[in-house]
Amino acid sequence: MSIEFSNRMASMRGSAIREIFKYAADPNVISLAGGNPAPELFPNEELAGIAEELLRESPILSLQYGITEGYGELRDMVKARMKTVESIGNAEDELIIVSGGQQGIELTTKCLVNEGDTVIVEEPSFIGATNAFRSYGAHLVGVPVNNDGMDLDRLEEVIAENKNVRFIYTIPTFQNPMGVTMSVEKRRRLYEIALKNHIFILEDNPYGELTFDGKKTPTIKSMDTENIVIYSGSFSKILAPGLRLGFLCAKKELITKIVVAKQVSDVHTAMLPQLLATEFMKRYDLDALIAKMRATYAHKCKTMLGAMDEYFPKDVAYTRPGGGLFIWCDLGHGVDTLLLSKEAIEKKVVYVPGNTFMVDMNAPSSALRLNYSTMSDERIVEGVKRLGDVFANVKG
Amino acid sequence: MSIEFSNRMASMRGSAIREIFKYAADPNVISLAGGNPAPELFPNEELAGIAEELLRESPILSLQYGITEGYGELRDMVKARMKTVESIGNAEDELIIVSGGQQGIELTTKCLVNEGDTVIVEEPSFIGATNAFRSYGAHLVGVPVNNDGMDLDRLEEVIAENKNVRFIYTIPTFQNPMGVTMSVEKRRRLYEIALKNHIFILEDNPYGELTFDGKKTPTIKSMDTENIVIYSGSFSKILAPGLRLGFLCAKKELITKIVVAKQVSDVHTAMLPQLLATEFMKRYDLDALIAKMRATYAHKCKTMLGAMDEYFPKDVAYTRPGGGLFIWCDLGHGVDTLLLSKEAIEKKVVYVPGNTFMVDMNAPSSALRLNYSTMSDERIVEGVKRLGDVFANVKG
Repeated sequence: MSIEFSNRMASMRGSAIREIFKYAADPNVISLAGGNPAPELFPNEELAGIAEELLRESPILSLQYGITEGYGELRDMVKARMKTVESIGNAEDELIIVSGGQQGIELTTKCLVNEGDTVIVEEPSFIGATNAFRSYGAHLVGVPVNNDGMDLDRLEEVIAENKNVRFIYTIPTFQNPMGVTMSVEKRRRLYEIALKNHIFILEDNPYGELTFDGKKTPTIKSMDTENIVIYSGSFSKILAPGLRLGFLCAKKELITKIVVAKQVSDVHTAMLPQLLATEFMKRYDLDALIAKMRATYAHKCKTMLGAMDEYFPKDVAYTRPGGGLFIWCDLGHGVDTLLLSKEAIEKKVVYVPGNTFMVDMNAPSSALRLNYSTMSDERIVEGVKRLGDVFANVKG
Repeated sequence: MSIEFSNRMASMRGSAIREIFKYAADPNVISLAGGNPAPELFPNEELAGIAEELLRESPILSLQYGITEGYGELRDMVKARMKTVESIGNAEDELIIVSGGQQGIELTTKCLVNEGDTVIVEEPSFIGATNAFRSYGAHLVGVPVNNDGMDLDRLEEVIAENKNVRFIYTIPTFQNPMGVTMSVEKRRRLYEIALKNHIFILEDNPYGELTFDGKKTPTIKSMDTENIVIYSGSFSKILAPGLRLGFLCAKKELITKIVVAKQVSDVHTAMLPQLLATEFMKRYDLDALIAKMRATYAHKCKTMLGAMDEYFPKDVAYTRPGGGLFIWCDLGHGVDTLLLSKEAIEKKVVYVPGNTFMVDMNAPSSALRLNYSTMSDERIVEGVKRLGDVFANVKG
């Protein structure tokens, strides 16, 4: 019996990044394709002690069904933290704990987007989000990103050209895949444009706290007096991704609906990850851990940029991130980085080709994404050197 | 700015059971409304030791991103266990780990059901599943359930009457909410009907191992030579629900698509719950734990049925389950158990009214669901006694 899939899922394929990861499993291959946080920074000893104590002393709390909204104490702590760190959350807002930032994005789409409705995305953008939008049959429209964020003149045109625009998806800080940050002026103007056009903003901020110099740009949500910003946060990059722990902060009425959607999706987020995050924040200093991450990633990013300055052909352009996990490279006119990735694999180095992050993934892209977060300095330099050789053949 | 929800979610409300649970929080109220497993059977000491060791010695495995399909060792162990315990899984099948049985049902619906497509459900049926179907705009059609399972003559009529039937959802063993089990003859005939009509069967079997006398009816999936049965399993009732751990076994091509859907839903199931289940099965005897559960639930069920025989009016009909967590009561013509629940709450006892489990939740139901799994014998007897008083007023 052949399978007739739903329209929304029929054309969906797995992430192209997964194919690249097959090569990355070879220890002789240097992978600049990942997006994993540095595992040496996981507070695993602390979490081991907490987990042991929780399971031994609080079996019902740790192992019985919980409520869909999330563990009460964790919700309160995240609300308080978001208020302090990001100036987020007013009386009309509510917060739900979700099973990783990805789930917040998926549930938001399920609740707001009919098949054929428009979702506006930065181009390039995070494939996990764009695929979540595609999985509900959204009509994706891209807006180019400059070094100071989304091209807002183009955004206004796109809004005028498209019907049923449900929300604008943005990663304003240390964007995935570009590593760039939207200026505060652009954030204010983006908010005004969305408000004027009655469109929600889905602000995805998994990397915001990973600022190298400690300076932070105000979140768009912090400007949100009218409750049109849906803020997606995550513990993946500040604690550990294997916990699958994130949260959404938005207008109460929307969160109420998202609770219903989450109830039929996974009932609630696993209790142990929720309790581990709660107790870690109570007993230890999450900000001190984040400070270590900032220093580590700042060093690794500097190492990678230094190697790129040395080993890349001079006409290769790349971003210089102030935080986060990614650098975006552009090889310029005529280069197809998907084709080029085969040569890179031969030279035992992998990256993510730029087309992965575009609305039209079939169009060739001259750009690519590099990641520095999980490797040693030596591997970073050697990986960049190998890539420089690949590029030299093309550009020469 | 008002929120325009997607068509699929616009009319969705939270489960009515949640309202009842508000009253159940009062310690003076005896709740027969739950569906939670007995917490005294959680192997929390064993899991505490495992969690501590895993986090201390395997930080990358426990805390880094995992793969969408699920942790390899757990998949292999679940495949092997399903082969042994349920005779499930042939060369054309594949298995994915999901974040609780609920997620398996939701992802299956997302991949197979367009808005307006028909899903056939037992009536009454599990509200978590029917709401998952509703959340994708499915056209739900109910088929009555007798003491030996679904009315298959009616099923054939329903298939003839409806277009685009995508699957038949059944909980054949210790059904929720009725506690009844489909006979092996009916299972065979159901499979033939589905095969003849090119319709999938979604077989949900969270309670199958909780058989009081150790006897088991073959799963429908065990008859599935043509790979038309999607089998949903769960660790919630045999280990602990707070882990949010389940699995789906189905035709490879369908599992491949479900992996894509899961990737955009939560990337992967949290690692620690997956590892806890894996190591628990390796180091301890899951079957011995399940044997304890069988004995405990058999005793609690017998206690409840004994009290019902003693305290309920003679014309109240109820099922006598051979396993699982639920008993279904019918008060007969003219009684509305939703209205009656207010009187029950006054007498400090709560149950789930039957309308909750129906396709048309607004039509009055004379039936209700009782649960015995989490209470002491004394509370079970006292709860049934209180309920008997409520019923006596109605039936008198």
